[in-house]
Amino acid sequence: MTEERRKKRIGVFDSGIGGLTVVGALLEQLPRENIVYFGDTARVPYGTKSVEVVSRYAREDAALLLSYDVKMIVVACNTVSSVAINVLRKHVDVPIIGMIEPGARAALTVSKKKRIGVIGTMATISSNAYPKALLSNNPDVNVYSQACPLFVPLAEEGWGEHRVAEIIAREYLQELVKEKIDTLILGCTHYPILKKTIQRAVGEDVVLIDSGRSAAALVERYLKQHDLLNQQNGQTEHLFLVSDVPQKFEELGRRFLGRSLGEVKKVEL
Amino acid sequence: MTEERRKKRIGVFDSGIGGLTVVGALLEQLPRENIVYFGDTARVPYGTKSVEVVSRYAREDAALLLSYDVKMIVVACNTVSSVAINVLRKHVDVPIIGMIEPGARAALTVSKKKRIGVIGTMATISSNAYPKALLSNNPDVNVYSQACPLFVPLAEEGWGEHRVAEIIAREYLQELVKEKIDTLILGCTHYPILKKTIQRAVGEDVVLIDSGRSAAALVERYLKQHDLLNQQNGQTEHLFLVSDVPQKFEELGRRFLGRSLGEVKKVEL
Repeated sequence: MTEERRKKRIGVFDSGIGGLTVVGALLEQLPRENIVYFGDTARVPYGTKSVEVVSRYAREDAALLLSYDVKMIVVACNTVSSVAINVLRKHVDVPIIGMIEPGARAALTVSKKKRIGVIGTMATISSNAYPKALLSNNPDVNVYSQACPLFVPLAEEGWGEHRVAEIIAREYLQELVKEKIDTLILGCTHYPILKKTIQRAVGEDVVLIDSGRSAAALVERYLKQHDLLNQQNGQTEHLFLVSDVPQKFEELGRRFLGRSLGEVKKVEL
Repeated sequence: MTEERRKKRIGVFDSGIGGLTVVGALLEQLPRENIVYFGDTARVPYGTKSVEVVSRYAREDAALLLSYDVKMIVVACNTVSSVAINVLRKHVDVPIIGMIEPGARAALTVSKKKRIGVIGTMATISSNAYPKALLSNNPDVNVYSQACPLFVPLAEEGWGEHRVAEIIAREYLQELVKEKIDTLILGCTHYPILKKTIQRAVGEDVVLIDSGRSAAALVERYLKQHDLLNQQNGQTEHLFLVSDVPQKFEELGRRFLGRSLGEVKKVEL
């Protein structure tokens, strides 16, 4: 029985392609696990849309993953993690891990001056999810937030290190630099693609926190604690699902995942 | 009977907010007409998505407008006009006017050297809809196309005249400038928002064609020919529908429409 549960897939979803950076972190951390990923490429992006619409989409995305009999769901989308994770937890009876709490904890661990910056989509920043998580863990921390709406289209366009990205990053991040942050949470799964550009804009001394990596570590801890780690040594099987035709997803996927994707299947929601 | 038909609304739809530039042109050209506009803000953008998904969305958008008993439908979205207008015409029994043919004809009228540039979303440019329309009207014309995926997020971010927009525009448009175009079709309803920036990038001698304005002129001609112009002198009534909460739509709407919107209503598709 437990053996059967251990072998089940981990479900991961995102509004589109950005969540593949989280899959990359999971594959590194947990090479024996089987993963089913869903990217809602027919309705991407979520970060500019309302709480109501994002919540509805998130429930549909989770329902799709549940139909693959997953042992847990990783919400590899900071927007959904920010505005809809409580709704999801009410409607879904497998454990759900989001991006906010792991990212916030990692930032508090490395920040010496307790001056932490957070960047993300409009929806994530408006929700104040990161400041709330940071302050509930440490009421003395100083948090500075900035929405960076153009970072997602820049990453999707493959312009993450273009000089235009440099100018935009400097403009978005100048207030955070003025506040002398020592740690910056990349509160959107697309942003690791712009990591070098962001690092240059804030300076080499600021530590960048990739919430996806922190979440992958938490997934491992959770599976260990609940004796749900896949023990099998055989071939793993990863399945990638999208709601729009997979062509662009396959093209960009390699850049986001850091390796080739294998099978990508279109599904109807 | 005819009087009743004349009083019916013109239906206009777009993936989001961009189509308001077309509504602006219609209001100027046809101040007595009643308009119902639908912006699919819960699924915007269309221009990065596949023909299949865009066609499905377009049929749902048209069905919504038909439920308001419209006398015609204006497809104020170049992506839908490029890839899905024939599918729409098969399924809808009111006249449909898209952006491509009017924009192409206007460009051919003003271009002296018959060297015409076309810019639009990835979907619009990949479809070759504008080159086909231009060449079927004049086989001797030279057409140069360029997708400009970052223009839509720049317009939505309100950065249409930011120096970043200048740099991006110069980079996107440099090949068209090298080809010595004398006319440039703005093949996306968002692009009139970046008109000044685009004009500077291609030079003052290049004539910019706003397909929305050309389409509005065609709508007037069509209504006249078919005796469908609204003859009433009373108050007109415009209704704006969106699929996501209207707040951002209202905020940005003024910029796109050039005047205040009045009532904006959220609908479920």
